Amino acid sequence: MKALTYLGPGKKEVMEKPKPKIEKETDAIVKVTKTTICGTDLHILKGDVPTVEEGRILGHEGVGIIEEVGSAVKNFKKGDRVLISCITSCGKCENCKKGLYAHCEDGGWILGHLIDGTQAEYVRIPYADNSLYPIPEGVDEEALVMLSDILPTGFEIGVLNGKVQPGQTVAIIGAGPVGMAALLTAQFYSPAEIIMVDLDDNRLEVAKKFGATQVVNSGDGKAVEKIMELTDGKGVDVAIEAVGIRPTFDICQEIIKAGGHIANVGVHGKSVEFHIERLWIRNITLTTGLVNTTSTPMLLKTVQSKKLKPEQLITHRFAFSDIMKAYEVFGNAAKERALKVIISND
Amino acid sequence: MKALTYLGPGKKEVMEKPKPKIEKETDAIVKVTKTTICGTDLHILKGDVPTVEEGRILGHEGVGIIEEVGSAVKNFKKGDRVLISCITSCGKCENCKKGLYAHCEDGGWILGHLIDGTQAEYVRIPYADNSLYPIPEGVDEEALVMLSDILPTGFEIGVLNGKVQPGQTVAIIGAGPVGMAALLTAQFYSPAEIIMVDLDDNRLEVAKKFGATQVVNSGDGKAVEKIMELTDGKGVDVAIEAVGIRPTFDICQEIIKAGGHIANVGVHGKSVEFHIERLWIRNITLTTGLVNTTSTPMLLKTVQSKKLKPEQLITHRFAFSDIMKAYEVFGNAAKERALKVIISND
Repeated sequence: MKALTYLGPGKKEVMEKPKPKIEKETDAIVKVTKTTICGTDLHILKGDVPTVEEGRILGHEGVGIIEEVGSAVKNFKKGDRVLISCITSCGKCENCKKGLYAHCEDGGWILGHLIDGTQAEYVRIPYADNSLYPIPEGVDEEALVMLSDILPTGFEIGVLNGKVQPGQTVAIIGAGPVGMAALLTAQFYSPAEIIMVDLDDNRLEVAKKFGATQVVNSGDGKAVEKIMELTDGKGVDVAIEAVGIRPTFDICQEIIKAGGHIANVGVHGKSVEFHIERLWIRNITLTTGLVNTTSTPMLLKTVQSKKLKPEQLITHRFAFSDIMKAYEVFGNAAKERALKVIISND
Repeated sequence: MKALTYLGPGKKEVMEKPKPKIEKETDAIVKVTKTTICGTDLHILKGDVPTVEEGRILGHEGVGIIEEVGSAVKNFKKGDRVLISCITSCGKCENCKKGLYAHCEDGGWILGHLIDGTQAEYVRIPYADNSLYPIPEGVDEEALVMLSDILPTGFEIGVLNGKVQPGQTVAIIGAGPVGMAALLTAQFYSPAEIIMVDLDDNRLEVAKKFGATQVVNSGDGKAVEKIMELTDGKGVDVAIEAVGIRPTFDICQEIIKAGGHIANVGVHGKSVEFHIERLWIRNITLTTGLVNTTSTPMLLKTVQSKKLKPEQLITHRFAFSDIMKAYEVFGNAAKERALKVIISND
């Protein structure tokens, strides 16, 4: 089969690879119909994730059709349409029993990382009963690719960790796909204001269409002043960090109200200076995390009820044969006005 | 009246001061029967809290007898025995209505800070209905001085923010009065293990008597290794920082389990390096805060039922005429084997 393969920092290629086989009785083999590219894939390609070995098939998002199941798989059979979760969970370990699937002792984020991923014709999914979700009738399959990772990430690690409540003022720093996912799902809880912050005016325009009540371009280094002005000097109840660098983390520290929540979603490569000399007295809560995908079944229902429209996040579509081009577009997201790109296998 | 007065960094004196008067109809004047000294008072004396003006009477803890009330005070009358909260709260502002009394827009921590405090014969308490608590019959008045600040601080900012649960492993870094208060109140929630960490073997011995299941002397710089060994390499569910310096904050960052809570109680004078490059993926929660004292009525009930014995924290007793000596002993707490000192007015 054809697969997008990592060949060390800066190098990737579409290669011929053997079709995966059932290795354990809890495995399923899924024929991938649609997949996408994540910011994390770009990090891997930069060499930022040294645990990814050369030869690894990338990708941890997608939808598909069950090709084959191991003898212990009970929830799925050949031909079922499924959503692939970016998180693999055994459902049996101490962390899984706490709902902390991100830290499953025999899983977590392994797809396209420690085992071969979804940017291929087929993928092997361990613990299929816990790591796949059935696609309900009548739901747009393509849109559900957004539920593999970015929507549960923005929702669980941004909105739920940030404890967004009705009437609150929320700032989301970073209007990339995950920031946008937080923007869409924050609205489940009816905050009074959602202030979207980014360097790119196009993304801020899109954010307005997605429900941001205020937008701030932080390119002049004055985001903090602008947000304080928008909030009558009070700051925000919830600050969601969706970038993963020090300057955006700093904005969150500056704008947070006493009693507020900073929800870090961004993937950071370096430590940050935490201003505990000011914040010790401010009764703030700071959370971090990798998505557990415990919210996936709930998010599926919001898609069915049309409360959530994940298809809004899709800006580009490619055939699998053009995946190298898809990487190029996604790698120049601001210039290309790209949010998420769909790659179809057919 | 006699009052312990701050006269600028490094300087304090017992001076003759005018007896306070009712200034607003919501005020009460309390005759202080017993007070104590807080680590914060020592910080003020070092000059670390520049908002304290010269001439200020120090102290934010104590019990006493109502001497006079303003016309709007409904809960108290002359002669009532009362517990003074370190936090003054109007009960009417947005923050008070959220239970965020620490950030009351016309109060918070003002006693012995922005207005005259309790280390005197009399003290004026603003918003008396919300800032004083009646002392129940039959409860040892002296022990309740521990409920003005340290017990609610250790409980709310350590135990409640840290979300201590039955069966968990908790580490408390710092066995000073507030760390000990967290140790005593953590036991309400029946954790499996409480590991107490300090530099002082005497305090660690006391911690064992107070319920610590393990103690670690961190003097050799190997606290992290020792705690990881005690927890089979897993780390702790809850780490309570009760010192307020970078090395102790660092211990918390190193020992926290995926999904765990770091509850910062310590008062920090400098920023810290937050290792978000490791912790972004660990699903941790970090909290900070000044006590709200919302738990004071509940803590009073645990004292009445003898579930909590605050008198254990009292190591020394002085007459008010010896308050300078009391400061000396408290200022050399390790050498003097001091936790809390009681100062009686009589």
